[in-house]
Amino acid sequence: MGGVGSNSILRDGKGFLLAYDQGFEHGPTDFNEENVDPNFILDIAKKSGVFTGIVFQEGIAEKYYGKDVQQETFNNQLPLVLKLNGKTGFHKGEEPLSLQLTSVDRAIELGSAGVGYTIYVGSEHEETMMKEFRGICDEAHKKGIVVVAWMYPRGRHVEGKENSRDVVAYASRLALELGADFAKLPYTGDSESFEWVVKSAGKTKVLMQGGTRKDDGLLLEEVTGSMKAGATGMAVGRNVWQSGEPVNVAKKIAEIIWS
Amino acid sequence: MGGVGSNSILRDGKGFLLAYDQGFEHGPTDFNEENVDPNFILDIAKKSGVFTGIVFQEGIAEKYYGKDVQQETFNNQLPLVLKLNGKTGFHKGEEPLSLQLTSVDRAIELGSAGVGYTIYVGSEHEETMMKEFRGICDEAHKKGIVVVAWMYPRGRHVEGKENSRDVVAYASRLALELGADFAKLPYTGDSESFEWVVKSAGKTKVLMQGGTRKDDGLLLEEVTGSMKAGATGMAVGRNVWQSGEPVNVAKKIAEIIWS
Amino acid sequence: MGGVGSNSILRDGKGFLLAYDQGFEHGPTDFNEENVDPNFILDIAKKSGVFTGIVFQEGIAEKYYGKDVQQETFNNQLPLVLKLNGKTGFHKGEEPLSLQLTSVDRAIELGSAGVGYTIYVGSEHEETMMKEFRGICDEAHKKGIVVVAWMYPRGRHVEGKENSRDVVAYASRLALELGADFAKLPYTGDSESFEWVVKSAGKTKVLMQGGTRKDDGLLLEEVTGSMKAGATGMAVGRNVWQSGEPVNVAKKIAEIIWS
Amino acid sequence: MGGVGSNSILRDGKGFLLAYDQGFEHGPTDFNEENVDPNFILDIAKKSGVFTGIVFQEGIAEKYYGKDVQQETFNNQLPLVLKLNGKTGFHKGEEPLSLQLTSVDRAIELGSAGVGYTIYVGSEHEETMMKEFRGICDEAHKKGIVVVAWMYPRGRHVEGKENSRDVVAYASRLALELGADFAKLPYTGDSESFEWVVKSAGKTKVLMQGGTRKDDGLLLEEVTGSMKAGATGMAVGRNVWQSGEPVNVAKKIAEIIWS
Amino acid sequence: MGGVGSNSILRDGKGFLLAYDQGFEHGPTDFNEENVDPNFILDIAKKSGVFTGIVFQEGIAEKYYGKDVQQETFNNQLPLVLKLNGKTGFHKGEEPLSLQLTSVDRAIELGSAGVGYTIYVGSEHEETMMKEFRGICDEAHKKGIVVVAWMYPRGRHVEGKENSRDVVAYASRLALELGADFAKLPYTGDSESFEWVVKSAGKTKVLMQGGTRKDDGLLLEEVTGSMKAGATGMAVGRNVWQSGEPVNVAKKIAEIIWS
Repeated sequence: MGGVGSNSILRDGKGFLLAYDQGFEHGPTDFNEENVDPNFILDIAKKSGVFTGIVFQEGIAEKYYGKDVQQETFNNQLPLVLKLNGKTGFHKGEEPLSLQLTSVDRAIELGSAGVGYTIYVGSEHEETMMKEFRGICDEAHKKGIVVVAWMYPRGRHVEGKENSRDVVAYASRLALELGADFAKLPYTGDSESFEWVVKSAGKTKVLMQGGTRKDDGLLLEEVTGSMKAGATGMAVGRNVWQSGEPVNVAKKIAEIIWS
Repeated sequence: MGGVGSNSILRDGKGFLLAYDQGFEHGPTDFNEENVDPNFILDIAKKSGVFTGIVFQEGIAEKYYGKDVQQETFNNQLPLVLKLNGKTGFHKGEEPLSLQLTSVDRAIELGSAGVGYTIYVGSEHEETMMKEFRGICDEAHKKGIVVVAWMYPRGRHVEGKENSRDVVAYASRLALELGADFAKLPYTGDSESFEWVVKSAGKTKVLMQGGTRKDDGLLLEEVTGSMKAGATGMAVGRNVWQSGEPVNVAKKIAEIIWS
Repeated sequence: MGGVGSNSILRDGKGFLLAYDQGFEHGPTDFNEENVDPNFILDIAKKSGVFTGIVFQEGIAEKYYGKDVQQETFNNQLPLVLKLNGKTGFHKGEEPLSLQLTSVDRAIELGSAGVGYTIYVGSEHEETMMKEFRGICDEAHKKGIVVVAWMYPRGRHVEGKENSRDVVAYASRLALELGADFAKLPYTGDSESFEWVVKSAGKTKVLMQGGTRKDDGLLLEEVTGSMKAGATGMAVGRNVWQSGEPVNVAKKIAEIIWS
Repeated sequence: MGGVGSNSILRDGKGFLLAYDQGFEHGPTDFNEENVDPNFILDIAKKSGVFTGIVFQEGIAEKYYGKDVQQETFNNQLPLVLKLNGKTGFHKGEEPLSLQLTSVDRAIELGSAGVGYTIYVGSEHEETMMKEFRGICDEAHKKGIVVVAWMYPRGRHVEGKENSRDVVAYASRLALELGADFAKLPYTGDSESFEWVVKSAGKTKVLMQGGTRKDDGLLLEEVTGSMKAGATGMAVGRNVWQSGEPVNVAKKIAEIIWS
Repeated sequence: MGGVGSNSILRDGKGFLLAYDQGFEHGPTDFNEENVDPNFILDIAKKSGVFTGIVFQEGIAEKYYGKDVQQETFNNQLPLVLKLNGKTGFHKGEEPLSLQLTSVDRAIELGSAGVGYTIYVGSEHEETMMKEFRGICDEAHKKGIVVVAWMYPRGRHVEGKENSRDVVAYASRLALELGADFAKLPYTGDSESFEWVVKSAGKTKVLMQGGTRKDDGLLLEEVTGSMKAGATGMAVGRNVWQSGEPVNVAKKIAEIIWS
């Protein structure tokens, strides 16, 4: 096993990822004239200086993060977590399936410190994704990069319970049983229930998912609750780059994570 | 063929496995604040000193059983049976399918003495699982580790007959025809019918399945009945680690197995 | 191509196989306390001395036919035809599919003189089985062992016509077109129609299928009819080992085959 | 690329194939006591001396065309076109799918000058067959043998239009776009519309399909019409070997092809 | 990475592709006696001298573009973009799926400067095509040829919105996220909305799709609008070679592209 452990996307044992794969998952309706540009996102990361990793799909990593382009807009070193699977938002009402599109080797060629993969927990296609995920885990660990599991409860079997204590704890446990280094999970609404989620994950580290844009106060309350529950940090996207003051919001979250 | 035979998970010809893959199969609702922690399970094994093997999924084996972590909590040598497939409990009412998630080679890297695989006997997807299982059998035997088949009747074709003599005997026969070293099977309710199950398995050794938590008296009666029928031992999980006195229950079962 | 031809499972140009894969296909309900034991079957073969081959699934071949175990119970040389696919009897009313479980190489390791594979002629999954079968044929022939095709009309397209002249002749023709050395086929009820079946098979040799247990008189009449029609022999199972006098029945059939 | 071009199954730029894969596609109901025997077909080819190739499935090629057997019944050299896929006639009312059963390498081992593959144009499974066909094309061309595409409109999307000008022209165009050397196509009923079919095929050569047995007069009229339209020749089966005077009919067709 | 970049199918940073895969996608009903012949198309390209690339399926590339045949009809160098997938027009009302038929290696053997692949955005089979596409992207880029993504919204999820701003912008964003060099996209009807499409594509270059034959005035207006919106050029087919004055129309479009 290579020399890169979980610490490659942590600082003082805490992690804060800036996620930008929403153009794939939801389309440009999530964007405005500014944040449609990946360089705008890299700029937030640079100016705030608080993130321990950035999440891209391969196409954007190739054209905006590669050795040459990176230096134009982004001087400090920011670890890349390459998202290996993805699906579009067109398939409402279907049981979600997201397949591996990019290889671990390609992630390494692009200089990634880690790879990400979404498992839609509860979906009819869950088994297919768990199988792909395990293959990725073994390969990534053998080659020395970390694995972040996006664990999202979805589909008719968990409808209405996507944020419930038991369903999210099951999702976090699966991340442990499957061998993920990190599990990105939705918040359950209160710190006590999220503590059970964190406990169920055992030695797998928990990152709270930001989700759709919400009131700053509520967001910071959720971060506080999840950190108190034992989370290792957060992965944020829209709540930062859809904000009028993205750098400011990022710094406020970081304060809580590293408090 | 390597030097490891069935004896690697037996003592004096009998076997007693401590199973802990329920976090994958059922989720943390099976757990409390103590037994959610894999180290608690390892501790039961250590204190009781009666088990001939422990069953984990890969993620837990990696983080809690690996060479370094093992020594912290667990000094004596306990053979690992790595569960190679798994599915979640979300899919009620569907024909069950559980796919291979982990390779035999990975099991060997983790120091396993054997591998486990569930076949849902009677399921519409039964053929897919039998095909995967045969590949695993050939590879595991070639590389010198044993194979334990979890033979569970499930699905609409066997509904209501999951514990019946003929269905369980069919399951045990399939384990023999497919080449398993051990078949983990549900108890049929009485020793006489279970004798037919054991006979149908021929030279494949039968381990009684513990199943859901039940009254200690009933449990020990089942162990007695299955051992009398010719079983080689038992694989137990919830009936031990959900008990208030797990070490005690484990010792009582062991007394019957090795009586 | 290796030195083993069709003659490896023939004597004086005729063949008589003892089939024992029913534990897989139907379960132990086909068995009693005696014939549930593979050694009982090997014993019939030994005592009668009339068979030119025996049919097992891999698990039984490994544990009862292997070099060491063989000598215990069975001194004379009996060629093994290893059945490569199989399915259970749970799936009434479905279009049958039986997938390859064991490799040709594994068959050769176990000392097989030939391999067997069932094609459910007329099934919705027929094409999948024909594709697998052709791959097996090419590999087996390259490595010098013979191929026996179990050609069984099944499924809604041939319902009620499983023994009709035209359907069975189509099945026998497919065995020829696909390259089988032997086709195991159901009897059509009379020698004249079975002659058309044999003719349609061309240079592929026809073995009559024994099927479910029937009156000895009727059985011997069918053997007589099929041999008169040009068949090369028979594959028998239940009609021998479910009989009260298995050795006797086997000898009577042999008399007709080699008359 | 090898030295064998389209000319390997042509004489003076025209082609005439004798097809005998109907035992696979329709079963022995197409046959009588004579033509059920592949040697009877080889005998027609020998006696007429007009064919530029013969079409078999692998099983028949192995047992009746191989180096040794060939000389018994057939002295002159007749190029083999090995049919690589096939399906049975049991599946009325389903969208047809015919999968590759035999490899290009096996075709070459058997001495084939070319390979044949059926695409059911318009079928729901059309894409699967086109994908297999392209792989075959590339491999066959690399290894120096020709490719004949059986282009048959079938399935609910083309029902009732299997012989219409536009559908057959689309089929012929696909043969060109996919890279076939020859396209075997149904006649459209008149020479003018078939001219459009031939034109749509561009540099891919067109062979008219014989189809079910019809009146000799009508058959020869169709041959005349297709040759006038620019076809390269014909592939015939039942119209020759179901005829009372097969050699005679074959010669009459040849006269038109080479007139 | 090889020495061929996006410029291989550009001139002064603009691109103009002549597409001729409609015989595959729609059949010869798109053609007349002249344009059914691939040489007619190559002749338009030669006479107009304005195109920066030509699009063929493999069969036509092999027979009409290969080193020898090319010189007969086409003296100047015209880069080939080989279309790797394709489907027929028979499947109205189904969710479209178009599978890879030809390899990147074969494209390179044929001298291609780039490869093309259609993704039916919004289709139920979208994920399958995205997965194939990513594999093609990585391989093509490693071997130094460019990748053009045909991004076509199709299927019930986007019905009636195939040309809407948000759906087309989503399609263009996917091309970027997936790593395409070029995205061929339908025009959205006005320059302002198409600007959002171009912006969403980031560093992926946009080529407007010609589509069905329309009035020359409207066509040129669309080209003007898309170029004003920041498009890199156009891919045209029917609007040129179905025109009575194909060379003339091609030159008029080129004037706008390079204005």
